Amino acid sequence: MDLKALIRDIPDFPQPGVIFRDITTLLKEPKGLKYVIDSLALECEKLENTPDYIIGIESRGFIFAPALAYHLDAGFVPVRKKGKLPADVHSIEYQLEYGTDTLEIHQDAIPSGSKVMIVDDVIATGGTAKATSDLVQQIGSELVAFGFIVELTGLEGRKKLPDLPCISLVEY
Amino acid sequence: MDLKALIRDIPDFPQPGVIFRDITTLLKEPKGLKYVIDSLALECEKLENTPDYIIGIESRGFIFAPALAYHLDAGFVPVRKKGKLPADVHSIEYQLEYGTDTLEIHQDAIPSGSKVMIVDDVIATGGTAKATSDLVQQIGSELVAFGFIVELTGLEGRKKLPDLPCISLVEY
Repeated sequence: MDLKALIRDIPDFPQPGVIFRDITTLLKEPKGLKYVIDSLALECEKLENTPDYIIGIESRGFIFAPALAYHLDAGFVPVRKKGKLPADVHSIEYQLEYGTDTLEIHQDAIPSGSKVMIVDDVIATGGTAKATSDLVQQIGSELVAFGFIVELTGLEGRKKLPDLPCISLVEY
Repeated sequence: MDLKALIRDIPDFPQPGVIFRDITTLLKEPKGLKYVIDSLALECEKLENTPDYIIGIESRGFIFAPALAYHLDAGFVPVRKKGKLPADVHSIEYQLEYGTDTLEIHQDAIPSGSKVMIVDDVIATGGTAKATSDLVQQIGSELVAFGFIVELTGLEGRKKLPDLPCISLVEY
């Protein structure tokens, strides 16, 4: 399927000079939604280490990670912004282009030693995915793969991540 | 399945006196995740009007709406907080306990006349679901149902909503 035909380009969002790749036009097409979930699941079945848990990063990672977990018979675990998770958390602060952001995971979210995959909609600079992989390390789990719908290859985010399988369905 | 056995009660979150029903403990269990998605899909198949589009409300509605849309061969449409959607939006401001919040939907998200279902994790006072149903009306779509995992019946949120099928899987 030609995913780029279903993804909408929005110039100058969220700031001038940036082309935003809008996946909402893909997700509202039943065949587009089905294709991305099925494709992620298919790629995961080829992994040497099948994940026991799929982490989705708030909030667009939540769109894909639970549906993928369903297909793989895995659990879904959210990584959220500061203050959203109700029980005890591990936190990580990380650098954005301007300022910092914080991500959190429940301390008891994943039994230690479990195999974990991190899912988000887009990999750009890789900062958010890298911070999440550091969180996974903090909780003593084994990260086995990353999964994204869109990869902005020019930003080389993949280079920032641990050397593990990194699935992406469409590149810009 | 006894969903309450998988949902964790967190006292005094997000404020003193409130018991937060934490569904993360349900979602990390593969059989729990599967059960809630399958149960929502099963209830939807009994609806008189099958939805063409499933709206998920940011951000915990994103956990369920896309997986449900996948199962029903429907499209997924996000309703997001202010400023997150990149193209032209309809907005609605609504009352919270303290202050107001704003929700937005892309103007071209759903062809007019389509059948739409609104999905979120919890119905409490019903304010967020009601605001979303008003947005659906603004874009000229036909709302056919609501779906929630948890219903806090004491808050009577259901009474605030249009008189339509309202699915919830577990009541407190």
